[in-house]
This record gives sequence, structure tokens and C-alpha cells, in this order.
Amino acid sequence: MVVGIIGLGLIGGSMAIDLRRRGFADKVYGVEAESVNAAAAEKIGLVDKVMDLESCIRESDLLVIAVPVGTAARMLPRILDSFAAEEGCRKVVMDVCSTKENLAKVSRYHKMRSCYVASHPMAGTEYSGPWAAMPGLFDGRACIICDSEESSPRAVKMVEDLYAALNMRVTYMNSSNHDVHTAYVSHISHVTSFALALTVLDKEKDEKHIFDLASGGFSSTVRLAKSNADMWVPILTQNRDNVLRAVDTYIEKMQAFRDAIADYDEDKVRELIEDANRIKRIIR
Amino acid sequence: MVVGIIGLGLIGGSMAIDLRRRGFADKVYGVEAESVNAAAAEKIGLVDKVMDLESCIRESDLLVIAVPVGTAARMLPRILDSFAAEEGCRKVVMDVCSTKENLAKVSRYHKMRSCYVASHPMAGTEYSGPWAAMPGLFDGRACIICDSEESSPRAVKMVEDLYAALNMRVTYMNSSNHDVHTAYVSHISHVTSFALALTVLDKEKDEKHIFDLASGGFSSTVRLAKSNADMWVPILTQNRDNVLRAVDTYIEKMQAFRDAIADYDEDKVRELIEDANRIKRIIR
Repeated sequence: MVVGIIGLGLIGGSMAIDLRRRGFADKVYGVEAESVNAAAAEKIGLVDKVMDLESCIRESDLLVIAVPVGTAARMLPRILDSFAAEEGCRKVVMDVCSTKENLAKVSRYHKMRSCYVASHPMAGTEYSGPWAAMPGLFDGRACIICDSEESSPRAVKMVEDLYAALNMRVTYMNSSNHDVHTAYVSHISHVTSFALALTVLDKEKDEKHIFDLASGGFSSTVRLAKSNADMWVPILTQNRDNVLRAVDTYIEKMQAFRDAIADYDEDKVRELIEDANRIKRIIR
Repeated sequence: MVVGIIGLGLIGGSMAIDLRRRGFADKVYGVEAESVNAAAAEKIGLVDKVMDLESCIRESDLLVIAVPVGTAARMLPRILDSFAAEEGCRKVVMDVCSTKENLAKVSRYHKMRSCYVASHPMAGTEYSGPWAAMPGLFDGRACIICDSEESSPRAVKMVEDLYAALNMRVTYMNSSNHDVHTAYVSHISHVTSFALALTVLDKEKDEKHIFDLASGGFSSTVRLAKSNADMWVPILTQNRDNVLRAVDTYIEKMQAFRDAIADYDEDKVRELIEDANRIKRIIR
């Protein structure tokens, strides 16, 4: 099997490493718009060859779109256009983006829709680019396949096999539910980290103090604030309505804390903390 | 040297382990109000003996107050009362609490004030109790000694030696500045985690979804929400004014994100994220 990965950043690059290493792909080809990243990906040996998009579509059996979701939404119909209708789903295209409804919309009525599988491997770090790619990134993590009834069984099977090689736990849901859940379980935690970094940077003009005083707790809470704007601007804007609902609930909860502290209401502060502690049951 | 540790939780228990192991203390005695914790601390062997407060004061050269800050504020004057004035600072008492101004207030005019050293070792985990105690917890972390000019040089030296044995980087500041800085670098990040947990638990009634979908990023951002109410209620209420200022700034930043996303203002979202990314320069 020849896998073509479009976008050799953290996710695409890490996939390239493990898909070859674990024998899922005989060859991995890559497409990378940034020339510096393309050169790095070839030098590091992430892929067998970096080529242009047209060649990669022609040479590959399975195409993986691993670019920011705004670009992916423009690219997906173009790739489906290039698939020859008479060949059925000999070629398959999948994406790995963090929002799914928009991609569902741009592909829904395409005549080759069944050759596309929507997926979201929930793994990553706060780093980006081909240098951030690493083996084992996906092991044991959750992966969501969306709207699988819209894809041909053969295409779904190919993508399931890929995620099995990456050792991921696959869950199925429709793209609309996906975007609601990820707003709460992933997107909002990035926004809270960004806001925390902004708050501390705003108030602690002397960066040495932050450095000296930062505990492990602060570092872990602010870690996601290092995340890349190219990836997160389209996620937050494409999942706008769900993210806004999550942010509004979040601001309400912060306000409840604020009021309880302002009122010296220790019982209320305790109740809020103990309520929040229930997360222990879920997150180890 | 005999060290008496009052409160055998995560911090007190972890100190007990390393102070004995590294030869700073010949004996470590403990005081623990919760009988279950006291039995556990003796069984685990955290301390040589658990005893009542009066005996511990009598037997120890250096007393470490490692209880929640509300209790500490009631206990500190009582311990200083028990020190005999004619003996100078033969005995020394220190605390390890996360807020310092309140303790400064209750001790400021005590005739034995110079036998007290205020300190805050900035280390911990989200777990609590003697079972959470661990060796090496303090290694390489920051520690703040407050108002050291109010303490006798001998007392300060004793506490500095203790933190040297724990391998901590010591910083000096007054208790009022301490409480401002920790509000931004530590306390607010706990509030943001509690609020995040409440938001997700509120919206994701089906806990299985949270479990299935939680990525490493969400887990690290929500980790502090497991923190203990007995410790955090007094911290947040005793550092009320600074915490409120931090929370207000934080809500402003969240609101700025909200507005930019609501307005489809991708440039503004990007600007906020890139601004937040500056935290990379400070937190490795």
C-alpha cells in the first residue's frame, strides 16, 4: 500500500513514521507547501519522497489530509474531483482534522463522497512542524471516525486498518456530535490555556518572576498555550457555535467562583471545588 | 537535629521522607489530627513517631507547620507562645503555606516573631494525604522565603539549610508580593482548572464520552481540578483580593477570545493566540 500524506507537520509526520515502521505502508509519499518543512521532512527521512499534490494523488492508494482544517476544506473537494468515477473507490482519501462538520458540508453532495472517510485521531503535543513528529504519538489514544455510513465499507475498512496499525481506540459518531463533544473536551481547554497565558503575561511584566515561580501545576495548565495559531485559528472559527457555548458556560463557572470568593462564602467555594473534583473519577 | 512536622499530608510527608533520607534530620516526629492519616503515616514509616502537638513542640528543634493555611494561622501564635523568651531562638518554627500575608499579620507583633520563618516551597501534585507523600518532590523546584528580615539570622539559616537538603532554588520576597505573584502563577491556574472541570461535567452528562475523548491536552489542563478542597478553600479566601484581580483579568481575556470568535475575526483570534504563545519563551 502506498500512503500519501498531505501536510508533514506533527500529525502527518508522526503518522508517516509509524505507518512505515509498522509495515502498514510500503511507501509513504508526502506533500508539503512550506519549502523549509518539505526539506526538513526529506532530510529527517519522514517520507520516501516529497512531491507535488497531483503526483501524490496519482501515486497513492490512500491519501491523508493532515493540514489545518481551513485548507483541508478547500482541498478535499479538489482531491475527490480527481478520483475517476469509473474506478469506484480504488483510491481513498481521509482527513485527520479536529473539526468535522465543515468538511462534511463541503463533501456531502460530491459524487465521489463514498471514497472519503472523516476521522480525528485525538493525539498531539503543543509542538508543531516536521521536527515535532515522533513515533508512538497515537498509541492508546482515542480516534473518532465520523459519518462512516457515508463512506464505502472498503474505504472505512482501510482507515480502520490504518488506525489499528497506529494502535488507536476507534469511536464512531456523526460529525455534528463530534464537533459538540470536542468543543468541550478539547477546544475549550486550549482557549482556557491561551487566556491563562495572556493573564499571567499581562500582569507579570517581569518574566523572571514567572520563570522563578512557575510550579509544575502552572506549567501543565498553561502548556496548551504554546499551540500553533495556524492550526487553532481555523478550529476555533470553524467550530464557532459549539466553542462559544462552551466558553459561555465556562465564563459562568468562573463567575460563580469569583462571586463565592468575593462574598467570603467558604461553603460555596468548597462546594464548587468538590463538584469539580468529580473529574477524578473520569480522568486518571 | 530533631524536626517536628505538623500535618503529615503530601507536603509534610514528602519533607519527612527526604529530610531523614538525606541526613538533615536525625529524628522526624509528626503531629496529625486525622487519626486515619496518623495511623497511615506511622505504618508507612514517614516519621519516627506521631505524637501530640505539645510533645512535638517540646521534643523538636525545628517545627514545620504543614497544615492548611487557615489552621496554620490559628496554630502559629500558639506555638510561638510556647517558646520560652529567655532561650532566644533555640527552637525555630517555619510554615510551608501557599499564602503568606495572613500569617505575617498574625505573627507580626509576637515577642517571639524572630523564631518564625515564613516559607513556601512551590511543589506538589494534585493528590493529598500521607499516601501521596513521595521522595524527591521538591528537587529543583522554587521556594520562597518571605520577610526574612523579621526572622533571626540563625532561624533563617536553619530553614535555608533545610531547603538546601531538599534541593530547592530559594527566592526572597516580602509576604505581600508573594501573595500577588502566586495569585497569578499558581492560584489562578487552579481556579481555571476547577472551572474547566465544572464546564465539562455540566455539559457532558455522559461521562463515558469524556473518558473516551479526553486527549492528553485536556487531561493536563484539567489535572489541578483534582486538588483538595481542605487546602484550596483557605488559600483562595485568604488571598481573596489578589485572586479576584487575577480572575477578573482572566475573564477579560476569555471575553476577548469569545468576541473575536463570535465576530469571525480570524486576525484577532490569531493575534491573541500568538500573544499567548510568548509563554514558550518562559516555560520550557
